[in-house]
Amino acid sequence: MERLTITTRSHEEMVDITSAVQEVVSRSGVRDGMCCIFAPHTTAGVTLNENWDPDVRHDLLVSLDDMAPASPQHRHAEGNSPAHVKASLCGSSAIVFIEDGRLQLGRWQGIYLAEFDGPRRRQVWVKVVSA
Amino acid sequence: MERLTITTRSHEEMVDITSAVQEVVSRSGVRDGMCCIFAPHTTAGVTLNENWDPDVRHDLLVSLDDMAPASPQHRHAEGNSPAHVKASLCGSSAIVFIEDGRLQLGRWQGIYLAEFDGPRRRQVWVKVVSA
Amino acid sequence: MERLTITTRSHEEMVDITSAVQEVVSRSGVRDGMCCIFAPHTTAGVTLNENWDPDVRHDLLVSLDDMAPASPQHRHAEGNSPAHVKASLCGSSAIVFIEDGRLQLGRWQGIYLAEFDGPRRRQVWVKVVSA
Repeated sequence: MERLTITTRSHEEMVDITSAVQEVVSRSGVRDGMCCIFAPHTTAGVTLNENWDPDVRHDLLVSLDDMAPASPQHRHAEGNSPAHVKASLCGSSAIVFIEDGRLQLGRWQGIYLAEFDGPRRRQVWVKVVSA
Repeated sequence: MERLTITTRSHEEMVDITSAVQEVVSRSGVRDGMCCIFAPHTTAGVTLNENWDPDVRHDLLVSLDDMAPASPQHRHAEGNSPAHVKASLCGSSAIVFIEDGRLQLGRWQGIYLAEFDGPRRRQVWVKVVSA
Repeated sequence: MERLTITTRSHEEMVDITSAVQEVVSRSGVRDGMCCIFAPHTTAGVTLNENWDPDVRHDLLVSLDDMAPASPQHRHAEGNSPAHVKASLCGSSAIVFIEDGRLQLGRWQGIYLAEFDGPRRRQVWVKVVSA
């Protein structure tokens, strides 16, 4: 398992970590297997989505904001409950297959750390399993 | 890893792929392990949900529509941002355990390709790992 | 694969299963690998979120209620479509890495069975894979 450190710059942000994850796969020497990407956080998650038009990431954050706004019924004193909700909606991990030493992603897919309560120093943990 | 091709028929649709995934498991010869199902798309996902009453799939699509409608704040020119959002909400992969060569699902669970921007030709990638 | 039985007490509830999952890992003897946690249900899911302030779990349930309310467009006769939707939003499984025989979680992360249609007897299936 490798630990990557990611510095986020905004309160909410989708950080493309595809290349960093591919580097872990390459270092592992695994040609055929699976890669698991894990965010050890409760106000950030991991998701796969479009790697081409940055507007898609913008729109994803907009929709998540609309879906999970601050609520008068929220009790958590830190005031960041929407970020916790979004982390569970995206999930804390993703799995990508490996063939010939390369992550097998769809043509438009990238791997993202989804920051919902930044800016912060975040970690992403990556494990490569041989099949 | 096997690549399945799925032709979706509607703009939004839950396609039951449980039997097709079980066939991959059977062909693999693996008796005890894990099966990972991956959608290499950014406007379709994979989810497990009820395999009995088709109304549940209908209701899931209705609720996702209500949750992630088109928004005037969306910028993506293709106009399918809600489909991208729903793909991240469902996630791009699912994991199911294997015992005695069979997918271990709950009594009411089926495996679905969740199409949010069809109809299209889609792929589902399946990998079986021996434990 | 081990099958844990969890009795939920409320209609909606986040049950902390971290210790129970760690016990499965310890019993397995695996020092380095991955643990997969699976809920064989369609109205309950598995998610990772804050293990410290119980208000976060409360707020997560509140937000999911707001996000996926009962709708006049729902057709499922059992009337629990919101629970099915929330199960797909959280997902049916989670993955956590193992090092030195311990689940590798972030400082604030716990593993939860998310009950959306209780109280009921639920199962959580846990599989530990050596890496």
